Amino acid sequence: MGRWEADAQGRLRQAALELFTERGYEQTTVAEIAERAGVTERTFFRYFADKREVLFDRSNALQNAVVSSIEAADPPQSPLEAVVEALASAGELLEGGRDSSRLRTAAIAATPSLQERELLKLFTLAAAAAEALHAKGVPDPTARLAAESGVSIFRVGFERWIADDADETLARSIRAVFAELKALT
Amino acid sequence: MGRWEADAQGRLRQAALELFTERGYEQTTVAEIAERAGVTERTFFRYFADKREVLFDRSNALQNAVVSSIEAADPPQSPLEAVVEALASAGELLEGGRDSSRLRTAAIAATPSLQERELLKLFTLAAAAAEALHAKGVPDPTARLAAESGVSIFRVGFERWIADDADETLARSIRAVFAELKALT
Repeated sequence: MGRWEADAQGRLRQAALELFTERGYEQTTVAEIAERAGVTERTFFRYFADKREVLFDRSNALQNAVVSSIEAADPPQSPLEAVVEALASAGELLEGGRDSSRLRTAAIAATPSLQERELLKLFTLAAAAAEALHAKGVPDPTARLAAESGVSIFRVGFERWIADDADETLARSIRAVFAELKALT
Repeated sequence: MGRWEADAQGRLRQAALELFTERGYEQTTVAEIAERAGVTERTFFRYFADKREVLFDRSNALQNAVVSSIEAADPPQSPLEAVVEALASAGELLEGGRDSSRLRTAAIAATPSLQERELLKLFTLAAAAAEALHAKGVPDPTARLAAESGVSIFRVGFERWIADDADETLARSIRAVFAELKALT
């Protein structure tokens, strides 16, 4: 993928998030997103299957990174540590994008069907993480519990990260929440 | 509510779960549910707003029980303990209904729109639990984390309970999963 194309994808994403914020998700068309990004609708569909995918295409990349990271984890780690570390390092995909993560979160929160989709993606992420733990010999319900708890930690860490004005990374925020969970139990 | 009416609601629920299992959720009509339960469609709508509510009306009762229980909890408990205990005791609403909980879970798993709805209900449950903790002076992100982790524990405990053939209660299953999380962290 050339530099110009990468820019087109980034511009499309930015244009979509701006329009969702200004007009609402339902009221925004693909044609309007393409127009604001200065590309054709055809170019839009080269990068995204549909309007919703602008918000969710990174979920798949995140999930793949998490699964790879659990597969590569050293066995002495506890299953929950492996999941939390996998999520913290996969979160690097989102670092540097705190402003767009904020816009994305606001757009999703404002639209119930998007909220349901986001929850399903997180549920699928937890199921994939549990599957990766199984493959390393972690039995159920330990694997499910570690995966579910890890995703809860990720969610709370993510929320804290986007709410925060300080120069905090997502990875550090996730690890801080994990430390809090340890204190809570 | 008289005994006969209570029976009608129970029969409608049972008839609906059987039909969802036999034919699938989408392929089942309210008329068919009413017919199998031996009541009129009008009676169906006295108990349930629509077909989907047969599966979800107890979620609200569960949430109310959890919130009341957190409100009544003694302060020396940790926030996570308060949430887990609230979920374990609210789970009494489901005790004795393991067979119908199994049918319900299978129907939801087979239909993506129901799965999204279930996840939204659990997300709302966690948000309500966090709100109840806030009201008791627990700050964020501790409140969010305790609520999210508590609901994860509930989910895993619930799954173990319906998968289990032994004479285990839901409350005991939830507490056992909590003990495992403590060991994991």
